[in-house]
Amino acid sequence: MIVVLAQGVSLKDKAAIVRFIEQHGGRLMVSELGETTHIGLIDGTAQALAAQIRAMPGVESIKSEAPPYPQVSREYREANSVVDVADVAVGAAEVVVMAGPCSVESATQISLVAGSVAQSGARILRGGAFKPRTSPYSFQGLGEEGLLMLAAARDQTGLPVVTEVVAPEDVELVATHADMLQIGARNMQNFRLLSEVGAQPKPVLLKRGISSTIEEVLLAAEYVASAGNTRVILCERGIRTFETATRNTFDVSAVPVLKQKTHLPVIVDPSHAAGDRSLVRPLAAAGIAAGADGVLVEVHNDPDSALSDGPQSLTLPGFTEMMSLLKGVADAVGRFIR
Amino acid sequence: MIVVLAQGVSLKDKAAIVRFIEQHGGRLMVSELGETTHIGLIDGTAQALAAQIRAMPGVESIKSEAPPYPQVSREYREANSVVDVADVAVGAAEVVVMAGPCSVESATQISLVAGSVAQSGARILRGGAFKPRTSPYSFQGLGEEGLLMLAAARDQTGLPVVTEVVAPEDVELVATHADMLQIGARNMQNFRLLSEVGAQPKPVLLKRGISSTIEEVLLAAEYVASAGNTRVILCERGIRTFETATRNTFDVSAVPVLKQKTHLPVIVDPSHAAGDRSLVRPLAAAGIAAGADGVLVEVHNDPDSALSDGPQSLTLPGFTEMMSLLKGVADAVGRFIR
Amino acid sequence: MIVVLAQGVSLKDKAAIVRFIEQHGGRLMVSELGETTHIGLIDGTAQALAAQIRAMPGVESIKSEAPPYPQVSREYREANSVVDVADVAVGAAEVVVMAGPCSVESATQISLVAGSVAQSGARILRGGAFKPRTSPYSFQGLGEEGLLMLAAARDQTGLPVVTEVVAPEDVELVATHADMLQIGARNMQNFRLLSEVGAQPKPVLLKRGISSTIEEVLLAAEYVASAGNTRVILCERGIRTFETATRNTFDVSAVPVLKQKTHLPVIVDPSHAAGDRSLVRPLAAAGIAAGADGVLVEVHNDPDSALSDGPQSLTLPGFTEMMSLLKGVADAVGRFIR
Amino acid sequence: MIVVLAQGVSLKDKAAIVRFIEQHGGRLMVSELGETTHIGLIDGTAQALAAQIRAMPGVESIKSEAPPYPQVSREYREANSVVDVADVAVGAAEVVVMAGPCSVESATQISLVAGSVAQSGARILRGGAFKPRTSPYSFQGLGEEGLLMLAAARDQTGLPVVTEVVAPEDVELVATHADMLQIGARNMQNFRLLSEVGAQPKPVLLKRGISSTIEEVLLAAEYVASAGNTRVILCERGIRTFETATRNTFDVSAVPVLKQKTHLPVIVDPSHAAGDRSLVRPLAAAGIAAGADGVLVEVHNDPDSALSDGPQSLTLPGFTEMMSLLKGVADAVGRFIR
Repeated sequence: MIVVLAQGVSLKDKAAIVRFIEQHGGRLMVSELGETTHIGLIDGTAQALAAQIRAMPGVESIKSEAPPYPQVSREYREANSVVDVADVAVGAAEVVVMAGPCSVESATQISLVAGSVAQSGARILRGGAFKPRTSPYSFQGLGEEGLLMLAAARDQTGLPVVTEVVAPEDVELVATHADMLQIGARNMQNFRLLSEVGAQPKPVLLKRGISSTIEEVLLAAEYVASAGNTRVILCERGIRTFETATRNTFDVSAVPVLKQKTHLPVIVDPSHAAGDRSLVRPLAAAGIAAGADGVLVEVHNDPDSALSDGPQSLTLPGFTEMMSLLKGVADAVGRFIR
Repeated sequence: MIVVLAQGVSLKDKAAIVRFIEQHGGRLMVSELGETTHIGLIDGTAQALAAQIRAMPGVESIKSEAPPYPQVSREYREANSVVDVADVAVGAAEVVVMAGPCSVESATQISLVAGSVAQSGARILRGGAFKPRTSPYSFQGLGEEGLLMLAAARDQTGLPVVTEVVAPEDVELVATHADMLQIGARNMQNFRLLSEVGAQPKPVLLKRGISSTIEEVLLAAEYVASAGNTRVILCERGIRTFETATRNTFDVSAVPVLKQKTHLPVIVDPSHAAGDRSLVRPLAAAGIAAGADGVLVEVHNDPDSALSDGPQSLTLPGFTEMMSLLKGVADAVGRFIR
Repeated sequence: MIVVLAQGVSLKDKAAIVRFIEQHGGRLMVSELGETTHIGLIDGTAQALAAQIRAMPGVESIKSEAPPYPQVSREYREANSVVDVADVAVGAAEVVVMAGPCSVESATQISLVAGSVAQSGARILRGGAFKPRTSPYSFQGLGEEGLLMLAAARDQTGLPVVTEVVAPEDVELVATHADMLQIGARNMQNFRLLSEVGAQPKPVLLKRGISSTIEEVLLAAEYVASAGNTRVILCERGIRTFETATRNTFDVSAVPVLKQKTHLPVIVDPSHAAGDRSLVRPLAAAGIAAGADGVLVEVHNDPDSALSDGPQSLTLPGFTEMMSLLKGVADAVGRFIR
Repeated sequence: MIVVLAQGVSLKDKAAIVRFIEQHGGRLMVSELGETTHIGLIDGTAQALAAQIRAMPGVESIKSEAPPYPQVSREYREANSVVDVADVAVGAAEVVVMAGPCSVESATQISLVAGSVAQSGARILRGGAFKPRTSPYSFQGLGEEGLLMLAAARDQTGLPVVTEVVAPEDVELVATHADMLQIGARNMQNFRLLSEVGAQPKPVLLKRGISSTIEEVLLAAEYVASAGNTRVILCERGIRTFETATRNTFDVSAVPVLKQKTHLPVIVDPSHAAGDRSLVRPLAAAGIAAGADGVLVEVHNDPDSALSDGPQSLTLPGFTEMMSLLKGVADAVGRFIR
């Protein structure tokens, strides 16, 4: 359910409506579409209040059936959105493979991996410069230095760069050097960070939280869109369930379900879902077969000495081998990989 | 961990070992391989008892690293098992599509659906004659009459028949008419039923329980194998998680994980996983891309008037369309669909 | 939502209504209250069909807000139901403790345990005679012999007996000797078994399935009630979640939630929830503090040599000690333990 | 498993050991106890590396059985830790009730609520000044102004104040005014924030994440302790499962399990677990019965007009009524509430 407010509604009326809903236990998402404010009611909460809300000053209309994420909804825009990442189109016929090491470790390493994955058909380079740290002695990422190495690898290969941003205060710096900003699973509901990436123009790669529902993913995307940036790509990367044979449970259904509900591109990250190199190839193929617009994988020149996530990183030859499989699968579903 | 018993061990010694383990909280699986009894310890329980067990009368040796399901383990048999279902080989290069209505409703209906899916490339006919009933007024299945209709459809089309058996006392009857016996998700740990299907010679299609781990699936398969029937095919059909956008969460990773751990064929059932016709095609494709040896789907000539599971059943043209997609995907992963 | 049928509705009309709902993907529960048939729609499915259903022959009225389990619902009966188990009242002010070994192992053992727990304040004796078997060498339970030993222990102590029944064909035998029939968690949705216990007069202890929702528990109870037996006691015993520190996650909220939704008594089984003796005492206390009408615990004279579930069984002194704690807690919440 | 490093080990050797473990897929926690560095291996990962690690320069010894959170472990300190919150002792015989509104809304409101809960026996005042915001029109909390109002309410009533801190940059400000800093469930693994609260002297109330295991809670606590602050109180507040009848599933077993594994105090938050006022009383009682050292509840003078979380807030008379129940339960388990 969406409450559409009148144009020119006063701040006071807006706040009164929002608080009325929240006081009655309603959870909501406020979204600005051009001049018009939309308030989406989440989870069916407070739908019983429709009549009362309708009567409040400033309310234009109520859309009972509309999902609470107006801008990212497929109802709002029927055609697929194509997000341009420095001239690589994500969400069009091409299935875009994004590859690179978990962490940028040195100029030599990133140059080596970037050159190799570019040759095998990757279209975007991934690599971490800022890592969420769990120990002060763990590799923390190279920070700005790492961003510069990524930029140099981009110059060398022509591949645009996606890298994670973990704190609001780093957004500006990361956006200066990267072509797309990644929001990690742990930060999917870090609203301060979502606001910041929503207020800058580079595209955003938004990963699903480990225990987030599909609706929550779409609400987080709406949050970014509502802050001004509709260039959002969603990423399924596994959820936490009772099953312990894999690190997370790769929810491949999320791909077609998201594609039904939103016009935004949807990609998959089989490396983090499985946590095991030997599963990356089949899960990447499954994601594409299910309709994913892209794949994000970890690749390392020497996984056994990688400074992070070695066990789930593909080797360079492993990546090349996987690409040949994925090209066939993309082809089978009417898409292509270059 | 597996405890291998000496050949000719007495019943008394066997029971003493089993009870010693169980008294110490160990959960176990007893499996007979030819003349030798293997006791598999589940979940790491009681591994601390290894030394004490080793010293008990009748113990031959202990394999610390072996999984508790010896016969179905990939360690026991490196090559893929190919299960022959009335001359259709499941587990070989061909990806075997099994299709048909949730329930057999009439001779006309099953004949119509069977003829159509056969023409589109299905290799095995599915159809329910005995349904787990939740209301006395719900359609209960046609019982033996339904089995005869399935048999007639087999004669007409040449497609072998798989159908569910829900009670131990029905095993003999169902096995007389069907070419493969299906154990439904709710019965995966119905040990009496597993014993019965394990004691007859027709192949068994064993569906994963809605909250069963992959290890539990393999233990259930071992149970059937230990009763004498190693012709078992496993089926992923969705697990229960916090996500509510789909009826169950289709755990596509289970396919490659099972293929690593067991030599048995593994298929997927996207119809029950998703509970929604529009998701069947992408999930079937995902399953094959991930390495499944087959797909089980519900197809109905008129889903809107189906007596059960209409909303998740494909139409006949929908099935034909899906097959053309699946052939491409099978091809892309080095398999084929006829 | 409940569809109330007209008295004297024809079987044909009944079946037509049920099938119309099921064909549209609706899941339902048919419940007979005296002369009137109620069809409960589950999970909000098919609520959109209300107008069409209303117009069908044989439909008397539609209750939009009613839960799909009419007889067990608190709306049907505002006052708590008190279930009489051979003169022990469950669901009244007394908190009823049911204790005994997992399995009856011998006449001496059950007599010893029964005598001891009776003296410490247990009011009902539990003990397994038929066990769901996972290995042919595991202790299978003593069967009818075990039932006779339980009966003898009842004669000795005056404690009524509750014991599990695992197969429809055993219901009559178990009901001859026991005072209450227990349906285990694995059988909560074994509808054939539910029908059988619903068709005999002894009270039924119905355990929640490991991955069953609270609504599903209530539907299973309605199924028993609809078969003619409304003397049902519900039991929370842990659900499967991502947490592995305990065997299952003891969902203590289920107690007050169930007490709000149903008039039936609700008890807890901390032994199976935790799988660890050291947690039984705090969880039993938590259950009573949350409003449970009773507690079911495993007690053994020598847990280290118990033939099943030793690690979660209390010792005799441990039980006595727990009872003194539980008496205080029961008292604190306005209940009592004798 | 814990790797104990030699005193005076070089930074280079430390980093080499950490990276060796991480390169082999090991997840770890580095903890400083006085002069000695402890590296805890998480989840059994990399235990196979023990011999290799043992041989590395700078390694003093390996404790195979030790949990990876040395300082907060019960093995490290057998006696319960008592955390002093401005002279209120948490973790001793008294069960400490912390109460107040979700959000501080005005000086009048917080004064009214504080006065009332103090009189009914609350020992610590809770109230949010900084709220994680999901909409710009939602009530954002009063920020520093709210902190001052809390401080005034403390002066009025003598109740120490606990309030949430949501960003590292706010830690200093919040610590100036509050007596205990709360880390919310969404921030349980926000390591930057954990570092900040670990580097200041006020006690920390650490809430379990919605999908965090008990081991992860203890690792987060170790992280705070390792940054220098061992005055940590843990809080169970519900986890995400398949059950939808309650907002989250209140994992009451976490209380006794945590009390076994750690010497830190453990409290429960039934308001957020249930999301429903009518469940707060039974769940608070259950928590205390299970051994909780305290209870955190939301109380509002007029829940129907509360600016946040009204539906789960107790009324002032509701709180008073609950306290009389909780006193009895505390007494029954050998504790007390003043």
